Amino acid sequence: MDRPRLLRRLQAVRAHSLALSEPLSAEDCALQSMPDASPVKWHLAHTSWFFETLVLAPNAAGYRAFNERFGFLFNSYYEALGPRHPRPQRGMLSRPALSEVLDYRRHVDAALCEFVEAGDEAALRSAAALIELGLQHEQQHQELIVTDVKHLLSLNPLQPAYLADDAARGAGVATAATPPLRWLGFDGALVDIGHQGDGFAFDNETPRHRVWLQPFELANRPVSCGDYMEFMADGGYRRPELWLSDGWAWVQANAATAPMYWRAEREGGPWTQFTLSGERPVAPAEPVCHVNLYEAAAYAQWAGARLPTEAEWEAAVAAQAPPPSATTAPKALADHLHPAPITDGPGLLQADSAVWQWTRSAYEPYPGFRPLAGAVGEYNGKFMVAQSVLRGGSCASPAGHVRASYRNFFPAAARWQFSGLRLARDGA
Amino acid sequence: MDRPRLLRRLQAVRAHSLALSEPLSAEDCALQSMPDASPVKWHLAHTSWFFETLVLAPNAAGYRAFNERFGFLFNSYYEALGPRHPRPQRGMLSRPALSEVLDYRRHVDAALCEFVEAGDEAALRSAAALIELGLQHEQQHQELIVTDVKHLLSLNPLQPAYLADDAARGAGVATAATPPLRWLGFDGALVDIGHQGDGFAFDNETPRHRVWLQPFELANRPVSCGDYMEFMADGGYRRPELWLSDGWAWVQANAATAPMYWRAEREGGPWTQFTLSGERPVAPAEPVCHVNLYEAAAYAQWAGARLPTEAEWEAAVAAQAPPPSATTAPKALADHLHPAPITDGPGLLQADSAVWQWTRSAYEPYPGFRPLAGAVGEYNGKFMVAQSVLRGGSCASPAGHVRASYRNFFPAAARWQFSGLRLARDGA
Amino acid sequence: MDRPRLLRRLQAVRAHSLALSEPLSAEDCALQSMPDASPVKWHLAHTSWFFETLVLAPNAAGYRAFNERFGFLFNSYYEALGPRHPRPQRGMLSRPALSEVLDYRRHVDAALCEFVEAGDEAALRSAAALIELGLQHEQQHQELIVTDVKHLLSLNPLQPAYLADDAARGAGVATAATPPLRWLGFDGALVDIGHQGDGFAFDNETPRHRVWLQPFELANRPVSCGDYMEFMADGGYRRPELWLSDGWAWVQANAATAPMYWRAEREGGPWTQFTLSGERPVAPAEPVCHVNLYEAAAYAQWAGARLPTEAEWEAAVAAQAPPPSATTAPKALADHLHPAPITDGPGLLQADSAVWQWTRSAYEPYPGFRPLAGAVGEYNGKFMVAQSVLRGGSCASPAGHVRASYRNFFPAAARWQFSGLRLARDGA
Amino acid sequence: MDRPRLLRRLQAVRAHSLALSEPLSAEDCALQSMPDASPVKWHLAHTSWFFETLVLAPNAAGYRAFNERFGFLFNSYYEALGPRHPRPQRGMLSRPALSEVLDYRRHVDAALCEFVEAGDEAALRSAAALIELGLQHEQQHQELIVTDVKHLLSLNPLQPAYLADDAARGAGVATAATPPLRWLGFDGALVDIGHQGDGFAFDNETPRHRVWLQPFELANRPVSCGDYMEFMADGGYRRPELWLSDGWAWVQANAATAPMYWRAEREGGPWTQFTLSGERPVAPAEPVCHVNLYEAAAYAQWAGARLPTEAEWEAAVAAQAPPPSATTAPKALADHLHPAPITDGPGLLQADSAVWQWTRSAYEPYPGFRPLAGAVGEYNGKFMVAQSVLRGGSCASPAGHVRASYRNFFPAAARWQFSGLRLARDGA
Repeated sequence: MDRPRLLRRLQAVRAHSLALSEPLSAEDCALQSMPDASPVKWHLAHTSWFFETLVLAPNAAGYRAFNERFGFLFNSYYEALGPRHPRPQRGMLSRPALSEVLDYRRHVDAALCEFVEAGDEAALRSAAALIELGLQHEQQHQELIVTDVKHLLSLNPLQPAYLADDAARGAGVATAATPPLRWLGFDGALVDIGHQGDGFAFDNETPRHRVWLQPFELANRPVSCGDYMEFMADGGYRRPELWLSDGWAWVQANAATAPMYWRAEREGGPWTQFTLSGERPVAPAEPVCHVNLYEAAAYAQWAGARLPTEAEWEAAVAAQAPPPSATTAPKALADHLHPAPITDGPGLLQADSAVWQWTRSAYEPYPGFRPLAGAVGEYNGKFMVAQSVLRGGSCASPAGHVRASYRNFFPAAARWQFSGLRLARDGA
Repeated sequence: MDRPRLLRRLQAVRAHSLALSEPLSAEDCALQSMPDASPVKWHLAHTSWFFETLVLAPNAAGYRAFNERFGFLFNSYYEALGPRHPRPQRGMLSRPALSEVLDYRRHVDAALCEFVEAGDEAALRSAAALIELGLQHEQQHQELIVTDVKHLLSLNPLQPAYLADDAARGAGVATAATPPLRWLGFDGALVDIGHQGDGFAFDNETPRHRVWLQPFELANRPVSCGDYMEFMADGGYRRPELWLSDGWAWVQANAATAPMYWRAEREGGPWTQFTLSGERPVAPAEPVCHVNLYEAAAYAQWAGARLPTEAEWEAAVAAQAPPPSATTAPKALADHLHPAPITDGPGLLQADSAVWQWTRSAYEPYPGFRPLAGAVGEYNGKFMVAQSVLRGGSCASPAGHVRASYRNFFPAAARWQFSGLRLARDGA
Repeated sequence: MDRPRLLRRLQAVRAHSLALSEPLSAEDCALQSMPDASPVKWHLAHTSWFFETLVLAPNAAGYRAFNERFGFLFNSYYEALGPRHPRPQRGMLSRPALSEVLDYRRHVDAALCEFVEAGDEAALRSAAALIELGLQHEQQHQELIVTDVKHLLSLNPLQPAYLADDAARGAGVATAATPPLRWLGFDGALVDIGHQGDGFAFDNETPRHRVWLQPFELANRPVSCGDYMEFMADGGYRRPELWLSDGWAWVQANAATAPMYWRAEREGGPWTQFTLSGERPVAPAEPVCHVNLYEAAAYAQWAGARLPTEAEWEAAVAAQAPPPSATTAPKALADHLHPAPITDGPGLLQADSAVWQWTRSAYEPYPGFRPLAGAVGEYNGKFMVAQSVLRGGSCASPAGHVRASYRNFFPAAARWQFSGLRLARDGA
Repeated sequence: MDRPRLLRRLQAVRAHSLALSEPLSAEDCALQSMPDASPVKWHLAHTSWFFETLVLAPNAAGYRAFNERFGFLFNSYYEALGPRHPRPQRGMLSRPALSEVLDYRRHVDAALCEFVEAGDEAALRSAAALIELGLQHEQQHQELIVTDVKHLLSLNPLQPAYLADDAARGAGVATAATPPLRWLGFDGALVDIGHQGDGFAFDNETPRHRVWLQPFELANRPVSCGDYMEFMADGGYRRPELWLSDGWAWVQANAATAPMYWRAEREGGPWTQFTLSGERPVAPAEPVCHVNLYEAAAYAQWAGARLPTEAEWEAAVAAQAPPPSATTAPKALADHLHPAPITDGPGLLQADSAVWQWTRSAYEPYPGFRPLAGAVGEYNGKFMVAQSVLRGGSCASPAGHVRASYRNFFPAAARWQFSGLRLARDGA
């Protein structure tokens, strides 16, 4: 057990959550914009509750809970850990104040650091997997902080920015050219997918198992906003033949005409989008983002292609050298604001750095899947129905969090995540 | 025009709004607990917008709006004053921050004071009625601040108090005796009701008009919590024959068993209630509060009585000497926390100081009713359907705000206001 | 007790219900078009259940219920008479078949006739009031049969007719001229309203009581379709200043642009209406019909007038000689199809023969109101909240059913009844 | 083209639809019990419309539509074939009458027979695939007639039977012993699944493709009612740890305690079930039926097992000799009433004769899937999201309709179909 290294990692991850909340006021952190989203304050408290309940209470000798009533408030969905505040009511909690939640974080951090630095060796060893799970869990909530804040601010007619854009970054975005779409071919084969090796993985990425793949092709880059505007201009949102049945019902019920956060002053007029740095014109060379599975599938249908399966996606990424996630460097807040424009290069572009990519795979257990033991057995397994898998990662994902075997999942209609798509088609 | 007196009144009323928000954090002030309620911050801004839009902009030479976009955010329901932010979304506004709303208030206050102190005489004269309306309007929102905060805090499992109770006030409440109910008799007569005299009244209190009243009797005091617990113990919430049809449907849909904010650990166990000073036992001598029209009517049915009409109520109050509202002294915050226990005395007890009293009168225009001219014509008239009138005033009402002709109104199912009842019955 | 006369009346009323169902198939009679409406079969059975339960079972010696389980199916809302099938599920009852319901009617009719012809004198005397109530009740359901069938057929894209129109009746309707609107003046006075005399009245029409009326004027005729089309052409449905607040919300939520059952192929194009004899052009000289209280109040606002109160309406009708209801002759089915065009004449035109007229009076108990004793105490009283009174009667009302003191009532948004309006205004 | 054989098959299939409606009245056939279900009359008309629109109109020279307006009424969901009556409003159609729908069937049948007997050879050849699709489609609706009628009748407090039970069939059912559950083992292998050979298959069963299977075991028989009652007695519906997250939410929202149509007079009392032959005691040896995916998955979790994937199920069935569907004989109406009790034997018991079996596979396109050309391309493909696959067949399925590659699909919460489960587990 490399205690100093674990300590540094723990401090870095926990600090990034605070950094994300730094541009926000206590008021910004208290509101819940919809039942699917949570207040930033809740994310900050819940991730601390996770460490407190699953790591400190059972393992750290003498740990005293910060506030016994926080378990009820900050348990998300763990039936094994007792009753909890209803999810849609998370935005009713003006108390505890953000300042008290920050005290809570400091209390938990102090105990965690103490435990990692000086705790009993056997206890630490036995807690190691849950500490790592807690860190990965915190990183997932970091991404949710970004997406949930974006949704909240988008509802404000003042259109406030989370963070002002770096002028240098913005320069040229609107006019950058999108590199041409190229198809990368893959042979039919019996391949292994799922997590391998020693690193961390969530239980839903396991066990590694064999899958037969037919020959297929995968696009070298995500679908861009420019591509997507062609689909829109060609009547994409008015042609039922392009849509799944539920998707067409969704279009009609929501009078949908464009990705989430897009807006046009007049019909056919220029499109702008609400971003974390405020309203700005849609940039054709950026990957299209905030589309749901219905929109992704309709676009693919229009383009004469299809969405990849998750096994195709993973096999294709694994064939890259080096694998994309190996190249990820730490991120500044400004890196989270929007997906970078697509720039040309070899191989799979923006595989895990720009937008999550919808697949045509339902979120099902892998053959031989076993949930983790204990309360964390509820982490992933119980959600494996009526959701679809997204692969890759997004600008909102924290540095170093994702990997080729990572399985993100949302219901087909969800689009407040940074979700886009990459085309696939059958091979020869 | 007595400028100094108007100035003092203006400052006093505006200051009371701030005083009400003083025990609250910015987070407390930002949340909206249900579509019927508004965030405290919104109340503070909306009342300022009212003065800005209706008094300053048209009358005060050189007035500059604090922020042109606030009209969209803080217009409540005035169609004539343009589009507005949807009411159920008022809790999505983390911006403007409370601090900015307080700046807004200061900006408006400065201009108002300047106008009142040194504005053009003719302009001031012409604005005088709207200034008074703005102050009365602000007082109405002061009451809403109290009721809305109570609702919000009640949803928090931590059961936070708005203000700690004064120990002296609490002493003896739980055990105080309720004075006996006495019936005051009134003869049949052709009476005049509605506002008279020079003082302020809302348009819905006018014109004063003639009404024929049959002989009736009115209870000397409101129904107490002790009375109401007898109704509950006698199966009040389980006997459909006591309820209006909509009321019984409401009981079943909500599994209602007690007034709002009441709670019992176990069935038949002792009742506690959530108050602005936290959870505490129900006090039998306090007027029952937070009941809706359905509950009020079912109680009256059970008691072999009925609710008064608004004309009966007003005629009875007018017959008192001195009229209740003449005796009201300025209130401290602590006076707003809960209705005072009923103590004995002559005449009508707690006519306008404890709880609003449901009447059996729908909220209809008086014969000859004319709304005010201009945008403020929307103040009352357009709500005159499917609501019922409450008379009196409550502990949450600001000092000096109510009067014998005052007509409060809510839909039959509403009960987050400080609403109770007083019994009536037909006379000989 | 005039047994032969009662028998004739009983047979005539019961026969009219059957006559109303005669043009309909068993399938037509089984469907429920919305929770507010009931299947015709249900109306036929429920009215029989009413006689069986309230007249025969307690009074007719040896009466045997047709089917013990029908009480559960055909009790409408009488809590005192036990549990019942949920109202919105009345259209789930393919059994009992219409033929069995007709058997049920014959069974009840036979027992009723036997009881009226040969029953014990004391028993008959004691049941007399309930027999009369049962007949009046059946007549109310006859009107509901007409309105509910119209609603059901209107939902069918085949636009089926309940009954073909008599060509003679239709001739000239489309081009008939509307007589000019004249104002009839009434002095302020202390008047008595409510039922008087020996005839039947529902409990809600009693007791007769004194009301003070200010001077007022009442239009000699209902608002016509031609009048209403002027309101529409003048932007009536697009001008919030004309509407009650709830009414404007209703307009927006329903994208309302015309009365119920009206349709135009293209915007601004000619209006047609669905009627019981099929689709046909809107006839300007017919009273406007199928408008709700919101529409009625908005029209009145636009016309610079107001709706009458129910006391004004009743006092004005009582002042007519002869009172309108005295002149009503038996109706053929064809008389129920649509309101007759307005033709000129002296006094109040079509006071109770064409459309129900919305008043600006909420449905409240009269001073001193006492519900009937027993289960029928639930007949009217428990609905006295959040509804508005309509006065008069409609083409759908059976002959001889209504009277000057009759109080019909519906929620403000309802418009599937034959509801129109008559203007009023303040007098000098 | 074997015209006589096709004619016989056509007549037999069409006749079976009528036979299914024979025990029902026109009223029974007109009602729609919920948006998911359709009136029997609608099924009878829609299946005729399918032949008329897709076979006769384009291929049969001189064919004249029965009624041009039926296309709007009886198109189910084909966007390519024009607008249509909303699905939840199918129960509003008292017209056309059942008798007219039967005329419609006769009209279509006559033209179809004429076309098959004497139509142009080339036209018949070109229409052959669509005729077969029309027949398979009609058979699917035959199963829906059975399930939808059961749902409708279940809502009737009179608990009517669709068909009286054959006493001989019923004898001994309640006491029959359930054969022991045995596990059949299957090795890991690269297998082919999907339709093969010349027979008919829906597009969603194609293309046949390769799948890697890990070793697995499959239960020899479905889960019985007796098994399921053990799960219930062990707190199955009260233990969140057994349920998918959506499933547990479903249990709570619906206060679910047993399969659909089960009822107990008192808690813990004996269970009865509503069946097509009326209410009767639950028979332990019958396969459990009318459970949804949530219940199936919770049961499997409780039993220490899991649900099979659809590939496992198909591979296991294909390994049987002879395959189950080869043994199916024509069914009498009485065969549709409820699943037969499980009786012992070798191999997979009741693979496709008793209840549909939920799998743990989402309904996704097979690799290389291509929808049919033309409007029938909407038949299956557009529903491939957020549904789960069921395999096998049920007592409600018509004779000879299902096959080993058949993919049925419903959302996870659906349970009005005859849906049960068969356990699986990982192999050695």
